[in-house]
Amino acid sequence: MTDQLTHFNDQKRAKMVDVTDKAVTHRVAIATGQIHMHQETLSRIHEGKIKKGDVLAVAQVAGIMASKQTSSLIPMCHLIPLTGVDIHFKDNGIDTITVKAKVKTKHVTGVEIEALLAVQTTLLTIYDMCKAIDRGMLITNVHLVEKDGGKSGHFVYRKEV
Amino acid sequence: MTDQLTHFNDQKRAKMVDVTDKAVTHRVAIATGQIHMHQETLSRIHEGKIKKGDVLAVAQVAGIMASKQTSSLIPMCHLIPLTGVDIHFKDNGIDTITVKAKVKTKHVTGVEIEALLAVQTTLLTIYDMCKAIDRGMLITNVHLVEKDGGKSGHFVYRKEV
Amino acid sequence: MTDQLTHFNDQKRAKMVDVTDKAVTHRVAIATGQIHMHQETLSRIHEGKIKKGDVLAVAQVAGIMASKQTSSLIPMCHLIPLTGVDIHFKDNGIDTITVKAKVKTKHVTGVEIEALLAVQTTLLTIYDMCKAIDRGMLITNVHLVEKDGGKSGHFVYRKEV
Amino acid sequence: MTDQLTHFNDQKRAKMVDVTDKAVTHRVAIATGQIHMHQETLSRIHEGKIKKGDVLAVAQVAGIMASKQTSSLIPMCHLIPLTGVDIHFKDNGIDTITVKAKVKTKHVTGVEIEALLAVQTTLLTIYDMCKAIDRGMLITNVHLVEKDGGKSGHFVYRKEV
Amino acid sequence: MTDQLTHFNDQKRAKMVDVTDKAVTHRVAIATGQIHMHQETLSRIHEGKIKKGDVLAVAQVAGIMASKQTSSLIPMCHLIPLTGVDIHFKDNGIDTITVKAKVKTKHVTGVEIEALLAVQTTLLTIYDMCKAIDRGMLITNVHLVEKDGGKSGHFVYRKEV
Amino acid sequence: MTDQLTHFNDQKRAKMVDVTDKAVTHRVAIATGQIHMHQETLSRIHEGKIKKGDVLAVAQVAGIMASKQTSSLIPMCHLIPLTGVDIHFKDNGIDTITVKAKVKTKHVTGVEIEALLAVQTTLLTIYDMCKAIDRGMLITNVHLVEKDGGKSGHFVYRKEV
Repeated sequence: MTDQLTHFNDQKRAKMVDVTDKAVTHRVAIATGQIHMHQETLSRIHEGKIKKGDVLAVAQVAGIMASKQTSSLIPMCHLIPLTGVDIHFKDNGIDTITVKAKVKTKHVTGVEIEALLAVQTTLLTIYDMCKAIDRGMLITNVHLVEKDGGKSGHFVYRKEV
Repeated sequence: MTDQLTHFNDQKRAKMVDVTDKAVTHRVAIATGQIHMHQETLSRIHEGKIKKGDVLAVAQVAGIMASKQTSSLIPMCHLIPLTGVDIHFKDNGIDTITVKAKVKTKHVTGVEIEALLAVQTTLLTIYDMCKAIDRGMLITNVHLVEKDGGKSGHFVYRKEV
Repeated sequence: MTDQLTHFNDQKRAKMVDVTDKAVTHRVAIATGQIHMHQETLSRIHEGKIKKGDVLAVAQVAGIMASKQTSSLIPMCHLIPLTGVDIHFKDNGIDTITVKAKVKTKHVTGVEIEALLAVQTTLLTIYDMCKAIDRGMLITNVHLVEKDGGKSGHFVYRKEV
Repeated sequence: MTDQLTHFNDQKRAKMVDVTDKAVTHRVAIATGQIHMHQETLSRIHEGKIKKGDVLAVAQVAGIMASKQTSSLIPMCHLIPLTGVDIHFKDNGIDTITVKAKVKTKHVTGVEIEALLAVQTTLLTIYDMCKAIDRGMLITNVHLVEKDGGKSGHFVYRKEV
Repeated sequence: MTDQLTHFNDQKRAKMVDVTDKAVTHRVAIATGQIHMHQETLSRIHEGKIKKGDVLAVAQVAGIMASKQTSSLIPMCHLIPLTGVDIHFKDNGIDTITVKAKVKTKHVTGVEIEALLAVQTTLLTIYDMCKAIDRGMLITNVHLVEKDGGKSGHFVYRKEV
Repeated sequence: MTDQLTHFNDQKRAKMVDVTDKAVTHRVAIATGQIHMHQETLSRIHEGKIKKGDVLAVAQVAGIMASKQTSSLIPMCHLIPLTGVDIHFKDNGIDTITVKAKVKTKHVTGVEIEALLAVQTTLLTIYDMCKAIDRGMLITNVHLVEKDGGKSGHFVYRKEV
């Protein structure tokens, strides 16, 4: 563990960390998260794909667009021109959808927050699209899966036991 | 459970639901969520409040500002002029911070998504401010706690067992 | 024809027109527009719906989201909390897709620009999604179809001959 | 014609295309479009320049500002730091204004959409500024004129006959 | 002087003040500010109006558009649908331009910040447009002139001596 | 003094200046500004830091976030990925707070406007947070302090006498 919360200046106030002299490198981050719902809600989403309307299509567009807004929403984040964003869905066939977002750039700082925001927004859009039938959905297990590039190197998430 | 995913039109494509004729009423929503971290990370946040810089002050401003951007981020959400947003923190003294956001309006549709987005953004900003020392933080347990106002009436979250 | 370009002040400079005392009424606007493309491009969009990916799903989310940004993009437009946005597609089976957007509000001023911006953005997103295979697409015939509500009353577009 | 709609992933869902490894090159795009109106409307715009207020000045600022918002509005567009935007007007002295936008960057992907969005927004702002006297205006003939730079090379629009 | 900084909650953290139950009334605010520059810079702006390009036209569009973004920029500001924005210029013929912005709404809370932001943005745009010839310009004397409406009633600025 | 207002094209209309071929260099800009208030208002802000809530913490987050929005607000500004933003406060212990913002990038054009906008927004947020107790605050003395990098080289503000 490094020694400093780097986001503060000598007045003990937040700052956007100076990355002017960091190297431009390939950077990639993968994040994930889940939403739990009633079994019936998941059935509707499945059907929808076929005959009612595609909840996940909307959610995924939202996730991609949100990742581009990261620096507008998260106060100390640098603006990063993303070079790729891809979002995948998996579900357990019962009551849970898992979202995974992969974000890439070639820049001086990483895209972990961009990937996490893509996941959060995708999940919240699923909630929004289905809330009329299921207000009790639960968003959970949102975390970075893996990141690469930059000085801090490779990171892989390990569940604390 | 009502019968329809209301966000789709007769072409089976998403639409912004027509709320033109819904009544203007007082509406309030409370949402919550948690972030788990290393014990040392929470210690730093505690110290920071006193001598290094206040992570939660930044996170909370981010949460409030994000709630105002809900309709820009969540595709089918209506723009709602919020009349109040308040965010509180609680922690277990060990490794977990709990965020609670309360959002109010007097409008034709509810503010559940606004409250959830405030929570998500507050949590993600905590992650961002501390990621240099703890990349493995976990965002979890994000859900609506309670909402009131509007046709669907009062809702209280009940954990599924 | 009325006598004034209302968007200018006594210094002959633009202003946002004062609508403070206009009545809150139901307002609706319908706009339309078309995009012409190669026959093969339209075939791909058709197939996509079935087996490759749904261009129109993305375009339509873009159109709805853009209509909510109207006052950020069009300098003298008032912010209007929209109460409904719905976008439909029709194509001629050969080389042309027609987009129609219907926007509603209950407010002091109309939503013509919101409907037109929804149409334009939907069309441009179709262009963007297909430009790798067809850069020569043409956006055309964008106009207000009909609007109702407000002091100026009902309007129906009549093609000039 | 290339073989793929590139904006879809293996789940047949939209993605932001990965441009991480594309070369940074000079890129330029020119787009155009027209708005047809009553002769009297065009006269007012002409007069305005002289004694009432300058419709085109507002429209042009709107067009330039919109081009900078492209990646916020068009879901799969990459954020591109534009290095130049210039908009010109021409009219036929009767009833039609033609807008031409030239956009430049030095980046890994092109600026066609930025140029088209600049044109669309300029045209829609003209509509907005004049709609009090002419709601039947028609936006038409919006297309890419020419683009250069990048792997796909030089493109010149050729009207299909 | 009232007794409270109202923007803080019981955890001593910022909140968006609850205005849910405040009355909807007509509200107006007028703000002003100045920019000092070289005499030659002001001459150029004057000429520009006639033969080079109109700095103030751009600045004024910027001011109006910014006032609509107030709640996105100022963290604890409520979103207010403005019903009118008008910006005027006056100069002393030597080296100073004075900007005055008048903003109106019919809402539960006032528009002082909206008027001040319109003034600030107009002034900064003048700076931006002229900085190539005069980097030493000074923005000064920015304050509320007058506001009316709401519980706190009429306010007129009085210069402290 | 150079000879041209560079922001205009051959039609005497504004354009975003072409910086495509300018060199990427380190650039830094420092701007400052002040807000005058009642002595009691400054006392409250001081106390707040200790027991009521921290006005300056909110103001500073607002300033940093605004600097990232510069190209959205100031019409002819280029989008610049900022690599560092830091804001400091000083007060005279009586009635005046001085804000200083330092902004850095490695890009083809400078960040003066970004620094000035950070200052303006920080000051306006202080105003907003305290306006319930002091509507007569005055924002003044906003100017560039120093900038470096780029073709125009080093600049230091010199007060005109």
